[in-house]
Amino acid sequence: MKFYETTIKETEIYAGNYLNLMNVQVELPNGKLSNRDIIKHPGACAIIPFISENEIILVEQFRKPLERTLLEIPAGKLNKNESPITCAHRELEEETGYKAKDMIYLGKIATAPGFCDEIIHLFKATNLYDGTKSCDEDEFTDIKRFTLDEMKLMIKKGEIIDTKTISILSYL
Amino acid sequence: MKFYETTIKETEIYAGNYLNLMNVQVELPNGKLSNRDIIKHPGACAIIPFISENEIILVEQFRKPLERTLLEIPAGKLNKNESPITCAHRELEEETGYKAKDMIYLGKIATAPGFCDEIIHLFKATNLYDGTKSCDEDEFTDIKRFTLDEMKLMIKKGEIIDTKTISILSYL
Repeated sequence: MKFYETTIKETEIYAGNYLNLMNVQVELPNGKLSNRDIIKHPGACAIIPFISENEIILVEQFRKPLERTLLEIPAGKLNKNESPITCAHRELEEETGYKAKDMIYLGKIATAPGFCDEIIHLFKATNLYDGTKSCDEDEFTDIKRFTLDEMKLMIKKGEIIDTKTISILSYL
Repeated sequence: MKFYETTIKETEIYAGNYLNLMNVQVELPNGKLSNRDIIKHPGACAIIPFISENEIILVEQFRKPLERTLLEIPAGKLNKNESPITCAHRELEEETGYKAKDMIYLGKIATAPGFCDEIIHLFKATNLYDGTKSCDEDEFTDIKRFTLDEMKLMIKKGEIIDTKTISILSYL
């Protein structure tokens, strides 16, 4: 593979609840050695749920790293050995209280390829029906409805900055 | 602020070359305590450079966290005390070998707000002229030209998965 960097040594610096931090010594294409800090992430799913033909659901949530509340499409981490489609159905119901008859795979995104292996699988959910909202015990969220045009305007105005929420529009 | 989480204690777990890993104990909106691992990142800029009216430049680069080569818009981390616009001009020239007469601010994205504070500032570069390519000594890259339509098609086909590259289309 072009510009391939061979792993010489991999050292675990920290094993967190779901994030692991590794230091990887690599051999560069020119034969020299370098070190890269890499965050290992289990991967995730994100879903754009259509509650009507032109209306979608976003989740409002405080994000401690940014010290602010963000509007995002519903999303969540893959459980161990969980398939993306199963994760998408589970997270949609947990975060919004809706189930979806139809869940269509749209594509995948790499959120921070310079230092993290996180891949988010994107889905479109339609034909929603009532399920049960059940957030994690450390998650506090609200759900809100917007038209697609309102969502696009909020992106242009800088009111939506979450990259998975912005990226998913390219696949619709 | 809605659902605000108050910091009780912040502990540095690891200080890397440019990434720092913190463990933050927070008080949740219901008064209970929780812990969050947070990656501190200096922030970055990404630029979509128009080499002609409808043709843009992408950078091909091996990304060790994903063990593959990606096509991305040129981007790079903010130096200490560097403004986003200065960073955008510097990174454009370093990564592509072009300077830009015009650099327009488009907006900002949060790449992984669940666990990382990285913000990427997005710019559109036009009226390019020759400068000097000068990558970091551990960076090996190629530059390639595509039309906007080719870029959009590569996203739909899953050949471009980098989220800043996908997100920037929403601001054009």
